[in-house]
Amino acid sequence: MKFATYKNAQRDGELMMVSRDLTRAVSAAPVAQTLQQFIDNWDALEAQMQSRYEKLNSGEIECEAFDPKRCHSPLPRAYHWADGSAYVNHVELVRRARGAEIPESFWTDPLMYQGGSDDFIGPYDDVVVPDVAMGIDFEAEIAVITNDVPMCVTAEQAGNHIKLLMLVNDVSLRGLIPGELAKGFGFYQSKPASAFSPVAVTPDELGDSWTDTKVNLPLQTHYNNELFGKPNAGVDMTFNFAQLVAHAARTRNLGAGTIIGSGTVSNKQGTDYGSAIVQGGVGYSCIAEVRMIETIRDGKPSTSFMANGDTVRIEMLDDQQQSIFGAIEQRVSVLN
Amino acid sequence: MKFATYKNAQRDGELMMVSRDLTRAVSAAPVAQTLQQFIDNWDALEAQMQSRYEKLNSGEIECEAFDPKRCHSPLPRAYHWADGSAYVNHVELVRRARGAEIPESFWTDPLMYQGGSDDFIGPYDDVVVPDVAMGIDFEAEIAVITNDVPMCVTAEQAGNHIKLLMLVNDVSLRGLIPGELAKGFGFYQSKPASAFSPVAVTPDELGDSWTDTKVNLPLQTHYNNELFGKPNAGVDMTFNFAQLVAHAARTRNLGAGTIIGSGTVSNKQGTDYGSAIVQGGVGYSCIAEVRMIETIRDGKPSTSFMANGDTVRIEMLDDQQQSIFGAIEQRVSVLN
Repeated sequence: MKFATYKNAQRDGELMMVSRDLTRAVSAAPVAQTLQQFIDNWDALEAQMQSRYEKLNSGEIECEAFDPKRCHSPLPRAYHWADGSAYVNHVELVRRARGAEIPESFWTDPLMYQGGSDDFIGPYDDVVVPDVAMGIDFEAEIAVITNDVPMCVTAEQAGNHIKLLMLVNDVSLRGLIPGELAKGFGFYQSKPASAFSPVAVTPDELGDSWTDTKVNLPLQTHYNNELFGKPNAGVDMTFNFAQLVAHAARTRNLGAGTIIGSGTVSNKQGTDYGSAIVQGGVGYSCIAEVRMIETIRDGKPSTSFMANGDTVRIEMLDDQQQSIFGAIEQRVSVLN
Repeated sequence: MKFATYKNAQRDGELMMVSRDLTRAVSAAPVAQTLQQFIDNWDALEAQMQSRYEKLNSGEIECEAFDPKRCHSPLPRAYHWADGSAYVNHVELVRRARGAEIPESFWTDPLMYQGGSDDFIGPYDDVVVPDVAMGIDFEAEIAVITNDVPMCVTAEQAGNHIKLLMLVNDVSLRGLIPGELAKGFGFYQSKPASAFSPVAVTPDELGDSWTDTKVNLPLQTHYNNELFGKPNAGVDMTFNFAQLVAHAARTRNLGAGTIIGSGTVSNKQGTDYGSAIVQGGVGYSCIAEVRMIETIRDGKPSTSFMANGDTVRIEMLDDQQQSIFGAIEQRVSVLN
């Protein structure tokens, strides 16, 4: 099944079912009015929702053209958004650029931080930031939404709790990160509102591309309309989603509608740290990685972070080059 | 106004109004069914709610005896729970015990981490923890709930967004903290589900004890039925709640129902680090502080963290020795 949330006068928007090819949409209201409501009652409502979805795809139900620009994030607000760092290459790059090795434990114990989930922005909304000097960066990622997950769930069991997948732009304010990490309490101000893809999909929609709770497809990022990255999300993912969910649930239950992110998708491509699109590589999913490589190579970064008006587009195509989740397409808007 | 949330079959429970003296309660459903619903629509519903509250207090409305044991946390789940560390004495103690000075910036730039808010527990629920070896500790704190707060709000404006106050037991797993902080991403597994007081109150209920967005009253903690701490929450609070809210909103809007905590309440009492109840001091709001003092004094801690079956009770009395928020009263229940 595929879902979107249209903006309306309510904070949680209106839940829509979207056809597999993303061309048509119909309100899901006869079954659930919001995505949170559906996830809260997934088991009870799934069969009804599935039946409606089949009618939408077969044309047996009156529907409208799907308009991704009317979309909020599938969950406009959520009770829990925790982002892992499953692509350890990304972490290794960040550390190497400042001359540090990563601890051996980073290969067995996932990094995870909790992000703001009370005020997500829509996939076509501007990224509003107080000050361009904060070092504005995108991070292209994949995220899953779970139902209720019990504390101490095993990685083997955790996969069954993954109900939906989305893309994410986990906006980062790089200039604030060193100061915040030095304080020891992790990210807070350095992680402003994230945006998710217009459409969230059940794992079965990915077909053979969903194996071992990883998505084996390239994640495309365009920066100012140029292809910036297309790393394969199934490659170099040290921790799969089931492991990330189990990590999150080690000392707590996860409430229905918990969102767990993969961290910035990053491929090594048989090189030390991957290479850029212009060098024939698969490129990167954030500006920071390019700057790290420049730092390692040249002693200092030469690529700037995002400026006012810069755009980013994040999308994933299936093997038939059809968009799976719709695109996140955002522009930076600096307040001052 | 005073509010509680009774547990029912719904995830968000049933919103109750509680009389000023905490003896009587009545459903708030004619105005709002859940606390989140009320906060989402605070301005539109406040007058109606206030009128119902006056009738409850004057006995003009049919009501029932208030039963705090039926309570969930006022918000059983929330979209945002960020906890500051406003009592820098607490932070200084923690660092000093490991031989480190705190950076000068800690006196001007609040520490804040984001905690799990998808699965709060009730004020009388057990604290369920996987393993006693994780170093189970309570932290007695105060928290505020805001309405919608715009990004970049000033501290001067932020106070107006504080709609409710509660007490918190911010359970901490001390054994997991050093490892998590060393990873650089802050607390996650080391902060399991928090519990809040049965009752949330509007600031006006505090009368003269609410000044400069601080609560000028002692916060009592009993550990296994013995008084463990009674520091004054208005003393040594380096950052008031308005400053904490402004810090949280520096790069993001805060959604209605955001909870911002004070951090562990801690008084210096004219000494280096405060002193225990048995020494005639005001004591502490967490076990970790006692252990820090023991470490500074004796080279190692002698007080243990919580064991299976241990209890903690957190409460605040007004000048007439009346409970303001009801008590948090919890027992540790270790899974393994």
